Amino acid sequence: MSLYHFQTVKHLVHGAGALDQLGDKLALLDVPLRRVVLVTQNAMHGLGVTERVKAQLAARDIDVAVIDNVEIEPTLENIEQVFREQVAPRQPDALLAIGGGSVLDAAKLFAVMLTNEQSLRSMLGIDQVARAGLPTVLVPTTAGTGSEVTPNAIVTLPDEELKVGVVSRHLLPALVLLDPLLTLSLPKAITAATGMDAFTHSLESFISNKANPVSDTFALESMRLIAGSIVEAYQQPDSVRARSDMLLGSTYGGVALTAAGTAAVHALAYPLGGKFHVTHGVANAMLLPHVMAFNLDSCAPRLKRAALVCGLAREEDSDEAAAHKLIEQIAAWTATLEIPQDLAAFGVREEHLPEMAVAASKVTRLMVNNPKPLSLDDIQALYRRLLP
Amino acid sequence: MSLYHFQTVKHLVHGAGALDQLGDKLALLDVPLRRVVLVTQNAMHGLGVTERVKAQLAARDIDVAVIDNVEIEPTLENIEQVFREQVAPRQPDALLAIGGGSVLDAAKLFAVMLTNEQSLRSMLGIDQVARAGLPTVLVPTTAGTGSEVTPNAIVTLPDEELKVGVVSRHLLPALVLLDPLLTLSLPKAITAATGMDAFTHSLESFISNKANPVSDTFALESMRLIAGSIVEAYQQPDSVRARSDMLLGSTYGGVALTAAGTAAVHALAYPLGGKFHVTHGVANAMLLPHVMAFNLDSCAPRLKRAALVCGLAREEDSDEAAAHKLIEQIAAWTATLEIPQDLAAFGVREEHLPEMAVAASKVTRLMVNNPKPLSLDDIQALYRRLLP
Ligand SMILES: [Fe+2]
Ligand SMILES: [Fe+2]
Repeated sequence: MSLYHFQTVKHLVHGAGALDQLGDKLALLDVPLRRVVLVTQNAMHGLGVTERVKAQLAARDIDVAVIDNVEIEPTLENIEQVFREQVAPRQPDALLAIGGGSVLDAAKLFAVMLTNEQSLRSMLGIDQVARAGLPTVLVPTTAGTGSEVTPNAIVTLPDEELKVGVVSRHLLPALVLLDPLLTLSLPKAITAATGMDAFTHSLESFISNKANPVSDTFALESMRLIAGSIVEAYQQPDSVRARSDMLLGSTYGGVALTAAGTAAVHALAYPLGGKFHVTHGVANAMLLPHVMAFNLDSCAPRLKRAALVCGLAREEDSDEAAAHKLIEQIAAWTATLEIPQDLAAFGVREEHLPEMAVAASKVTRLMVNNPKPLSLDDIQALYRRLLP
Repeated sequence: MSLYHFQTVKHLVHGAGALDQLGDKLALLDVPLRRVVLVTQNAMHGLGVTERVKAQLAARDIDVAVIDNVEIEPTLENIEQVFREQVAPRQPDALLAIGGGSVLDAAKLFAVMLTNEQSLRSMLGIDQVARAGLPTVLVPTTAGTGSEVTPNAIVTLPDEELKVGVVSRHLLPALVLLDPLLTLSLPKAITAATGMDAFTHSLESFISNKANPVSDTFALESMRLIAGSIVEAYQQPDSVRARSDMLLGSTYGGVALTAAGTAAVHALAYPLGGKFHVTHGVANAMLLPHVMAFNLDSCAPRLKRAALVCGLAREEDSDEAAAHKLIEQIAAWTATLEIPQDLAAFGVREEHLPEMAVAASKVTRLMVNNPKPLSLDDIQALYRRLLP
């Protein structure tokens, strides 16, 4: 067994009503707080969330500036502009974020931009952020990207039609609040897509070449939680039990992927997002069963363990039989969750496949984690399974 | 499901050779390092461990002072004296510790004593430490107390024949290295006692009234790891696989107990340690099957889940039948591991039981976690099972 490094968040509060603990838990940040910036999105105002946070902060004499105009999947320019015009002038002592992955990522970036002289562009890549940032409190409202527990933030470079990442341990937050009540009103399509993305994080981490005992712990428990709640969360959006399990499962998925990485599914999803605007979760959900069927002969024992923990197979099943049950269940979920199955609907045609395959194969950072190497032909064949 | 707060360590390195990563990983502490204090124990000099650490630090121009005279289960006076005479004068930038629970606890205390004006006595209790301490790197050499991931440190007040704790999130380390190679030479009796202590942490956390989804994740995986390796670690001390699983299982036990607390077993162990000098792990191992048999009717479904994860029962077993299999296995382990089963050998006699029961019942901090309340008669009856 190899040596591995595991990193995670120090403080987590989970459960219905976790957001109401925000005020009390701010003491964990260990800095005097006079001014904070809250990064959020419009939808949170309507739900009264912004007001509840403001009230908790006002009761502690903390001034708060609300920022709600970070774009979804923001460009580098959007982040820089919001930072320059709205964040830096406030000179906050800490950053709060309540929202989806883009909102959390933006707050993580603002926190290190406030303490480092360097440009955002110079932070792109791995371990390029020089100094620790201001403390952050992250509250995810989707389940989800796992951004609340990853050292990653994604920005888009529109010129190059490219999503690129800042990866730095300095992006890890001081505190995470997981409140399932904030996710009850998620649109169904987002519950479906982000839920499947979360499951993909855990399954890809579990079969990753970088999988290790700690990432396995989180990946397996994440799959168990999501398998037991994703359909209920979709069909009964008010189920606090399902929403709670989805949220913890998604956070565990983020922990797992931080330790072990994602693999070919995420690599093949990139070209679908960049050029054809298939959202990240939908792209992953479409690809997941096909890539796992391709991987099967190189990781059947692991796929069986995943099937067992999801309650889909029995010990006496062969590795292959159990793996097939898992793959069939994933395909069944995408159908139940009404996730599109046809890339043609997004404008993808046979003639695009060679270029897409090249683009996917270039995501070597993820491809090296896949238990089975993929040739350009393999990648094209996988995309082709999603064409009529 | 209730709301709960989970805290843990941010950085963990696990695997054979983890200690050799020390030098490189010091960058994670985010402070310039010129001088460090290494708290360790004599045995580590003989194994060449101290020299290896010194060499890694010297290569980075870091001066190191070695402290190897912290007592086992140290008194408050011992900690204060070593601090005054050997730690404070060095003005270190960080603390390293390589050793058993007492060594790690001492380093955790030194780190906050260096940044807080308050006396050690004023830190006793929960959340009494005002400010964060210097960063610490903890390297356990037993599997174990779990001290490397708990916010607790134990000191003895000899006048009162009492062990008392400092509990503060400021005791959590910056970095933990889990190197199974450091545990290969552990004496067999210590492998046995500390291993059973670790299992007790996980099982008590799992049936604790404060158990929550995150503590459950760690408790179950800890029990699985320990159940699969404790006998091998005892009978084949050189098994790196068994030592590695024991070490991770023990650390997970520490994570679980931090989140959910231990219960009646640990409460009943206290009077055995204070007055009769039964070591902590031995006391817990002796008590564990009897206390679980007492608890059975209040937490049989949970005991079944523990039995399942340890591979001791099958889904079709009744809760009670599965729980009995777990309890029988625990008793069988204590026999295989040659852990004493007779309190009379430690000088305990029937006439001591009333006073011991009162002392145990006063450990309300732990007793409140037990799923079934214990009367003084119940406690006496449990001790009596360990008399001839
Ligand atoms: Fe993803
Ligand atoms: Fe213990």
